[in-house]
Amino acid sequence: MNERELRDYIAVLSPPDRRVMDDARARQARLAKPPGSLGALEDYAVAVAGITGQVCPTLSQCGVAVFAADNGVVAEGVSVTPVSVTWRQCVNMARHKTGMSALAHRFGDSVTVYDVGVERPLPPPAVDVRIRAGTGNIAVEPAMTRSQAVDAIAAGIRAARRAKEEGLQALGIGEMGIGNTTTAAAVLSALTGLPPEAVTGRGGGLTDAGLARKKQVIAGALARHQVKPDDVLDVLHKVGGLDIAAMCGAFLGCCEQRLCAVADGFISVVAALCAARLCPVVSDYLFLSHVSREIGYRAAAQALGKEPCLALGMRLGEGSGCVLMFRVLEAACAAMSDMATFEEAAIDDGYLAPIRNGQVGR
Amino acid sequence: MNERELRDYIAVLSPPDRRVMDDARARQARLAKPPGSLGALEDYAVAVAGITGQVCPTLSQCGVAVFAADNGVVAEGVSVTPVSVTWRQCVNMARHKTGMSALAHRFGDSVTVYDVGVERPLPPPAVDVRIRAGTGNIAVEPAMTRSQAVDAIAAGIRAARRAKEEGLQALGIGEMGIGNTTTAAAVLSALTGLPPEAVTGRGGGLTDAGLARKKQVIAGALARHQVKPDDVLDVLHKVGGLDIAAMCGAFLGCCEQRLCAVADGFISVVAALCAARLCPVVSDYLFLSHVSREIGYRAAAQALGKEPCLALGMRLGEGSGCVLMFRVLEAACAAMSDMATFEEAAIDDGYLAPIRNGQVGR
Repeated sequence: MNERELRDYIAVLSPPDRRVMDDARARQARLAKPPGSLGALEDYAVAVAGITGQVCPTLSQCGVAVFAADNGVVAEGVSVTPVSVTWRQCVNMARHKTGMSALAHRFGDSVTVYDVGVERPLPPPAVDVRIRAGTGNIAVEPAMTRSQAVDAIAAGIRAARRAKEEGLQALGIGEMGIGNTTTAAAVLSALTGLPPEAVTGRGGGLTDAGLARKKQVIAGALARHQVKPDDVLDVLHKVGGLDIAAMCGAFLGCCEQRLCAVADGFISVVAALCAARLCPVVSDYLFLSHVSREIGYRAAAQALGKEPCLALGMRLGEGSGCVLMFRVLEAACAAMSDMATFEEAAIDDGYLAPIRNGQVGR
Repeated sequence: MNERELRDYIAVLSPPDRRVMDDARARQARLAKPPGSLGALEDYAVAVAGITGQVCPTLSQCGVAVFAADNGVVAEGVSVTPVSVTWRQCVNMARHKTGMSALAHRFGDSVTVYDVGVERPLPPPAVDVRIRAGTGNIAVEPAMTRSQAVDAIAAGIRAARRAKEEGLQALGIGEMGIGNTTTAAAVLSALTGLPPEAVTGRGGGLTDAGLARKKQVIAGALARHQVKPDDVLDVLHKVGGLDIAAMCGAFLGCCEQRLCAVADGFISVVAALCAARLCPVVSDYLFLSHVSREIGYRAAAQALGKEPCLALGMRLGEGSGCVLMFRVLEAACAAMSDMATFEEAAIDDGYLAPIRNGQVGR
């Protein structure tokens, strides 16, 4: 896929099925409960209906795609963690021993790790979609070439296709890559115009001095590269990461494949924002899971115009929040599919009429 | 159980196992992740460890106890919904056709409905623990006698015992009772000293006029009965409900039975507050699930000094939020039990040392 083919691909991505969504909304209104009393679960169920094409969807097949890559900017001291940890944690993921993968295993969700560019190649079962061995150091050079950014996006698109082939209905989009809160903050700052100070956090736990250094590095990279805020590919290839670019592709791919796309924390929502800037339709397929404690999260969510529903103060990444969000979406679908309508519930007409008109208290 | 026996019962309720909690905290610190990066999941896992007595707990048996009762105050027009809906929705619950029960069924959680005082007795499988057929109208008389409040609390205590016998590890505490946002607001106002205006909401969807009337009724009841804010039994019997009193007992019973007690929305947190006022140890066994859209919820949560983790804008009641919270607690336990420690993960010492000292960024 070259850049022109990517543009053509994006041009034909289409929104969820509006008619199914209307039918789903009509069913919601007939369910035996005060209107709106299931809150966001109602909106989620309608969205899933539109995405899957089923008025009463069952969400039973969920999985997380983890995009792993290393980041040259780690050379600037933005993370004390050695680069080798990306490789190690990806290997542990396959053993269900990391945070996200332990949760996924417990709930029966699949986990697929994609090696988009870890310095040391990942062994199977990780899927080899390597573009290059880590990115360039954005403090002194572009992270990658523009065509490599397109290649990474294409790898994400293929990952969504694979998820569909494997029978998934919802895809969590996570990451593993030491240094990626730095690149994500740089991308977010570039896309939103927010100053690096406002979107740069402590990652895994930087000291004050480390945080100051990180902000300086990001500001320096943005100044050096003169990124064009309206050109996502320009931003991604100059100050992004292979993981973020591939995740951006996966969010796009979920539209094509009609998969519910579940974002995790900071890096994931920044990638979702890249995708939504390339193609606004992405937003219709997107579900935010949890508010990351990483400071830039809220700015990214706000730029997307979306709200997460879990507030757990997590900042682990990997896709850990997605696994919890799958359960919320499952619940939303169960309410839609399994609750009685007013007719089925045989609730007295005296109840039915006022409750439908929104005049009822309990 | 009389009042003296209740006081004796409460006096011997004891906190979770502190030694197990210390061991759990020590294990958390050894898990291969930046410290604190799983946020509230870490705290939940430590709490569940202390409650169950297992450093690495598995939470697989969860259930919701629904306390159903009618409220005489409905005669004041605080709800347009006829009283008969309490009965009807309880019957539908047993068929897994209401909001909460549809979710519980999907996730394999048990649902037990307790008839504490529905006007028309509930058929099986509801458990008959009836104290009286609905309460008195608090606008003109006490809801019940003081000894009936004790009886309702005792019924809740027995429900927790039954949950333990059935093998549950976590008990969601929900309700069904037309009119119970009125009684819950009255109880909350009495216990906290907050004015009725600040804690009274629209319930299932009151109009402005209906809401004004509801506030007036609550203020009137509080003025008439001169409740003693420091005497929970006084508050419960004069302006409470049979459901709230039984739920209060269930929260107490979870301490005795060493069950995780999961609160649902507004009425449930008010009942939890009653229990915590009777016995502060309740707080150690208590997990809040979601922020109800009902206006008094936050005041009750604040009075409890606890935070919910789900923000879904729900206001259905029944225990619907508990079912989602069970999944969060399950996830917390899975992370604790299944993640690798730094040693098991064989992460380079270069990673291990700084990450443990909280100096690491990603």
